[in-house]
Amino acid sequence: MAGECVITVVGNLVDEPELRFTPGGVAVAKFRVASTPRTFNKQTSAWEDDKDGSLFLSCSVWRQAAEHVAESLQKGMRVIVQGRLKQRSYEDREGVKRTVFELEVEEVGPSLRSATAKVTKVSGGRRDAVQEARQAQSAESVRDPWDASTPGTRGGQPPGQGGGQAGGSGWGDQQPPF
Amino acid sequence: MAGECVITVVGNLVDEPELRFTPGGVAVAKFRVASTPRTFNKQTSAWEDDKDGSLFLSCSVWRQAAEHVAESLQKGMRVIVQGRLKQRSYEDREGVKRTVFELEVEEVGPSLRSATAKVTKVSGGRRDAVQEARQAQSAESVRDPWDASTPGTRGGQPPGQGGGQAGGSGWGDQQPPF
Amino acid sequence: MAGECVITVVGNLVDEPELRFTPGGVAVAKFRVASTPRTFNKQTSAWEDDKDGSLFLSCSVWRQAAEHVAESLQKGMRVIVQGRLKQRSYEDREGVKRTVFELEVEEVGPSLRSATAKVTKVSGGRRDAVQEARQAQSAESVRDPWDASTPGTRGGQPPGQGGGQAGGSGWGDQQPPF
Amino acid sequence: MAGECVITVVGNLVDEPELRFTPGGVAVAKFRVASTPRTFNKQTSAWEDDKDGSLFLSCSVWRQAAEHVAESLQKGMRVIVQGRLKQRSYEDREGVKRTVFELEVEEVGPSLRSATAKVTKVSGGRRDAVQEARQAQSAESVRDPWDASTPGTRGGQPPGQGGGQAGGSGWGDQQPPF
Repeated sequence: MAGECVITVVGNLVDEPELRFTPGGVAVAKFRVASTPRTFNKQTSAWEDDKDGSLFLSCSVWRQAAEHVAESLQKGMRVIVQGRLKQRSYEDREGVKRTVFELEVEEVGPSLRSATAKVTKVSGGRRDAVQEARQAQSAESVRDPWDASTPGTRGGQPPGQGGGQAGGSGWGDQQPPF
Repeated sequence: MAGECVITVVGNLVDEPELRFTPGGVAVAKFRVASTPRTFNKQTSAWEDDKDGSLFLSCSVWRQAAEHVAESLQKGMRVIVQGRLKQRSYEDREGVKRTVFELEVEEVGPSLRSATAKVTKVSGGRRDAVQEARQAQSAESVRDPWDASTPGTRGGQPPGQGGGQAGGSGWGDQQPPF
Repeated sequence: MAGECVITVVGNLVDEPELRFTPGGVAVAKFRVASTPRTFNKQTSAWEDDKDGSLFLSCSVWRQAAEHVAESLQKGMRVIVQGRLKQRSYEDREGVKRTVFELEVEEVGPSLRSATAKVTKVSGGRRDAVQEARQAQSAESVRDPWDASTPGTRGGQPPGQGGGQAGGSGWGDQQPPF
Repeated sequence: MAGECVITVVGNLVDEPELRFTPGGVAVAKFRVASTPRTFNKQTSAWEDDKDGSLFLSCSVWRQAAEHVAESLQKGMRVIVQGRLKQRSYEDREGVKRTVFELEVEEVGPSLRSATAKVTKVSGGRRDAVQEARQAQSAESVRDPWDASTPGTRGGQPPGQGGGQAGGSGWGDQQPPF
């Protein structure tokens, strides 16, 4: 893949990340980021948020990182997100065609601007690299878990037995929520 | 300030972040990031690191975030860094003129690709916003703490009483290491 | 202004750029860019466009550069665009609320990947720098010329007497199209 | 290839682009860009170049685009460059090890901020796409034409019969300059 529009967005999580699994057991998390520009107020000599100029961007992250996001990030946290800017068209309930922009996340993490983080490396990275390569080829054909009407596992609850440790495929044996 | 070259680098910390303080008590941390491209090996169906193609970039981060970096990040960790690409010329010990590229960090955080993070918000953000604005104007004239010959505090040791909580200026009353 | 989401998009113009002027005589051009990722076809050993994955992005460019865009760029041309990603909400004719993403262009130019360009520097840059600074402050309060119902000058027609040469403010004395 | 550090730089050409050919006849052009940040002067209400903060970046562009660059761009012109940030180590004449940062250009074009451009599409794009794919695989093994001591063709002189039209491989039959 080449020629994609890779961008980096810094902002705050608008709500809790939501974790779901495809029927094949691949984890995917969604979250929204609000990126708010600041202007310098000469009177107070302080930077002020220009909330009217906020950019709200929906982000989706796949596989192991999805579980890490659900386990690590919460509403309000400031994050750095790098990903491919994508466009998706669909019809809403009234049959009106709508187009949304989304970020397919490559890397995401909490910003240390006004927070500290206790980072724990998750093993199994080597096995996942192979999985990742295999899954990357079939990623396009994976059914969008957000199209389903049944609710998925909420990100607030750490998934079953040990969250981040479990590789994506390990979930295939369990009952995915849709 | 406008027209700067803002870039985002994803990579691993080559060594421990090093925290120092300017004579005025402003915290600054330095760290190096190795960004390694990957190529897809068709035989093994896995992505492999192309270590010869690694990009090593020195990064400096100022004020409160500097302390958070020293407290949160360690050698080997994968990080996402956004900052302004800068160039600096100097003469080495042999009097040879050298030019280095450095990243003046705006945002940095651990990547959640193969790690989880327990994030703790550091209070005092509002006060720091004002400070930040004031200090931003004088940042250029701050003496580079790395020019000094006296050694600074190592990032490995969490600074005195409570690390991240202390605002940059709070350190002004103490004895900075140079 | 800080903390904005600055991105770079490379793609082809979907249609002709459209040039308009605000009531105050400030030039603004709009154009749409289609950015199409490519995948490598192993059978043919060639890169192929993945048209389903195209990203369509509306771009607006202001002042002198707007006139240069209208004069220089045409439908189908490959361009490089850098700008601030913005979001705008509005109600369509049916009263349905819609949100669009747009790029507020900082820099734009034709790509030389499969084209050559005969570049002509436009004088008056110094005067424009001052204007630009002044206008930048009032840019936010400028009425969106696309909200008006009266048609504007089409980009295909080079504006009156000498297109690019004329500074933005020179048009204030003439009758802007709305 | 994935995980590379792709950046976009906007700046002015420091000197004329220099066009050379590898022994295999592949065109490559080098040029340097100076990216200068601006600060806002409140007294004069104008943006001023902060020349001390200039970033000088060497860029190399390959194949057909190399010829287009040599034909289209000149010293002083403002350009937009997108590419992969690379690092290269070598020993200078005194045997001192030096490391330079370079941009491997993906897309480059003149900025329309204070210039217009008469763009001419160069045919042969389809054939080049196939070539490009083949050559991309062997690009790494191509000998750096700048290592050679014999001088190459200067960018100022348009190459032989019609510059941009000739595909990279067409030059293989001629005597490359080194």
